[in-house]
Amino acid sequence: MRELDTDRFLSELHALRRVGAYRSGVHRPTYSPEDMQTRHWLVAELSALGLDAGIDGIGNVYGRRRDDAPRLLAGSHLETQNHAGWLDGALGVVAALALARAGLPVDVVAFADEEGHYGSFLGSRSAIGLLEEAEIDAARNRHHGTPLRDALSAAGLAGVPRAQLDPSRYRGFLELHIEQGTQLEAAGHRAGIVTGIVAIWQYRIIVEGMQDHAGGTTMAERRDAGLTAVRLLACVDREFPMLCGPRTVWTCGRIALEPGAPSIIPGRAELLFQMRDLDVEVLRRMEACLERIVQEMNRTERTRTTLHVMSRSQPAPCDTTLQDALAEAAERHAPAQWQRLPSGAEHDAQYMARVMPSAMLFTPSIGGISHHWTEDTKEEDLVLALRILADAAKAVMPR
Amino acid sequence: MRELDTDRFLSELHALRRVGAYRSGVHRPTYSPEDMQTRHWLVAELSALGLDAGIDGIGNVYGRRRDDAPRLLAGSHLETQNHAGWLDGALGVVAALALARAGLPVDVVAFADEEGHYGSFLGSRSAIGLLEEAEIDAARNRHHGTPLRDALSAAGLAGVPRAQLDPSRYRGFLELHIEQGTQLEAAGHRAGIVTGIVAIWQYRIIVEGMQDHAGGTTMAERRDAGLTAVRLLACVDREFPMLCGPRTVWTCGRIALEPGAPSIIPGRAELLFQMRDLDVEVLRRMEACLERIVQEMNRTERTRTTLHVMSRSQPAPCDTTLQDALAEAAERHAPAQWQRLPSGAEHDAQYMARVMPSAMLFTPSIGGISHHWTEDTKEEDLVLALRILADAAKAVMPR
Repeated sequence: MRELDTDRFLSELHALRRVGAYRSGVHRPTYSPEDMQTRHWLVAELSALGLDAGIDGIGNVYGRRRDDAPRLLAGSHLETQNHAGWLDGALGVVAALALARAGLPVDVVAFADEEGHYGSFLGSRSAIGLLEEAEIDAARNRHHGTPLRDALSAAGLAGVPRAQLDPSRYRGFLELHIEQGTQLEAAGHRAGIVTGIVAIWQYRIIVEGMQDHAGGTTMAERRDAGLTAVRLLACVDREFPMLCGPRTVWTCGRIALEPGAPSIIPGRAELLFQMRDLDVEVLRRMEACLERIVQEMNRTERTRTTLHVMSRSQPAPCDTTLQDALAEAAERHAPAQWQRLPSGAEHDAQYMARVMPSAMLFTPSIGGISHHWTEDTKEEDLVLALRILADAAKAVMPR
Repeated sequence: MRELDTDRFLSELHALRRVGAYRSGVHRPTYSPEDMQTRHWLVAELSALGLDAGIDGIGNVYGRRRDDAPRLLAGSHLETQNHAGWLDGALGVVAALALARAGLPVDVVAFADEEGHYGSFLGSRSAIGLLEEAEIDAARNRHHGTPLRDALSAAGLAGVPRAQLDPSRYRGFLELHIEQGTQLEAAGHRAGIVTGIVAIWQYRIIVEGMQDHAGGTTMAERRDAGLTAVRLLACVDREFPMLCGPRTVWTCGRIALEPGAPSIIPGRAELLFQMRDLDVEVLRRMEACLERIVQEMNRTERTRTTLHVMSRSQPAPCDTTLQDALAEAAERHAPAQWQRLPSGAEHDAQYMARVMPSAMLFTPSIGGISHHWTEDTKEEDLVLALRILADAAKAVMPR
């Protein structure tokens, strides 16, 4: 086995940063010329290492070892959100490449469209057989509406078959990623072992009242949909802290009142509400509470409130053996400067976890900044993460 | 004096309904060909009665008696909101015409743009000298952006002088209008004597927090502008009922969260908040409470909330002598079927009240519907209102 080349790891990260450079970050949307340039570069690097490398019909890059020895799969994604950071995705791919270059028994993958320009985890879902052709036919870019088929064609991927992962080939999947939060930074920690990727349960809450003139309608007569929405959310704010787990989060990201004019009592309100936890029991408890709050609003308010489930994802607990190997390596390289934590954000690893043992390592995000061109991580932390990942990979694989 | 011609009154209302007819309502925006058609029709009717009639440079129609005897001014407006009702405005103008036709000592006025297509009460403000040429130069249609000057020119009003009211000519101003609420209907009353037009105090409340990923940011770390907005409004909902008067109303017509996405903690919230009361002391008390709530939010929340006064209008109490004359007439024509009530909506009468004794009579709105083509009032109530108005006008004027 060759030595881990941390300098080359950093220089490759910086080289990728220049492809689609935007200020100090990167603008590299899925299937853009810049995105495809990085995928072709990766194929070339993997081929140079003697791996069987290529891009499949959804844009996933695979680099497979040519022997039948036990191995790990490692990687992440290459595209970015619009005008976003240089490390989100690229870090996990370049780290996997560094492991392979060091001679570790690792296949490398760069999934397509983790960032959801055209859909939801197109690459990782395609890899495990959860993406139908019909979904590809219907998908369009969420920013500019270009059909996915047109984008694949322009990227030279029309007619290219999509590859399916054979989970039996792998001991497990490893993904290195930036934290996208401030928990590590706040604790003064330099690495995070992910305990699992939380489930996200999303709801649309509709309140129907009566649109009326704000001057001509007394308080007693009103059926103010906006006021019911405020009372409902205040009730959530009061009750949820009594039910939640230590890491549960819940968010109302949108409140839309119709018609939204200063002198008109809102006739309709629409709320987007979501909650996240690793523990489905906690989510069930909170959902039951939300249902009771809606029921109570319908008992006490002169409006009609309905709760609509938009999605309920599954949590993806990380494999404990892989977690322990990462923890042991973290303790060796950065004693007492690491912690375990759940991932509140979604990652390709959550789909890999459905078919094989999977684990994630987080490196700190400076100021917690994510999905913005100012996203950054100290280089010493990036190098530390690579060393932890390599040691964990060595520890779980037979010599 | 001639007899009150209630049939002609109703037939003229129905004739106006056909000018810009939209379903069972009317679409007659200010300075549209349909609006100008009704103004020219009114000039012709007033002239036929021997009044000195014309349209001034802002579109106000005046019909002045040619003698110097004491008189009243009566009227309302002729244009409608888009796709709105047949009675809002037209009722008060046609009633004034009916009084003049019955030989009562009444000058008739039809103000322009009470509905605010191009500005705020352009006609009634112009009549009392509160509209500057510079404001006319700058004003544009709020729906399609046409400059007011272009609209006046297309309506044939460019270069026509604007007339100023001489308040010393009048004993007072009378305006008949639909209620635009359900208080009369709910009480089983057929007429309402307006005690005054409420003051409206309007605010923009800005909450600044920190936009963050809803998955990566713990509840403790968040600076959620949307949550502060909910807590602030819940606080208003708790405190205001302890401070308000019997008829005070308050409304949050708009809550805008930025960026408004399901998985992003809102970094900014903007609320449009208003309150209305006839009693400025009540409004001062509530404003002080609102200031304290904002202060408390800044003490307890990890966000920054600021309160911006958008406008504070003056209340316009109705003249008690005119109110009493209307009340006496109401009791004669509809014993125990009328009440006194404030107007929560704004009307031309509020500007007339600045320069002369003014009063308003409300007729019930079926279902409280207003600013919608389904707006309606029973014909027997319309006729009743005209009789009350005529009797009150007789009572306050010397024989």
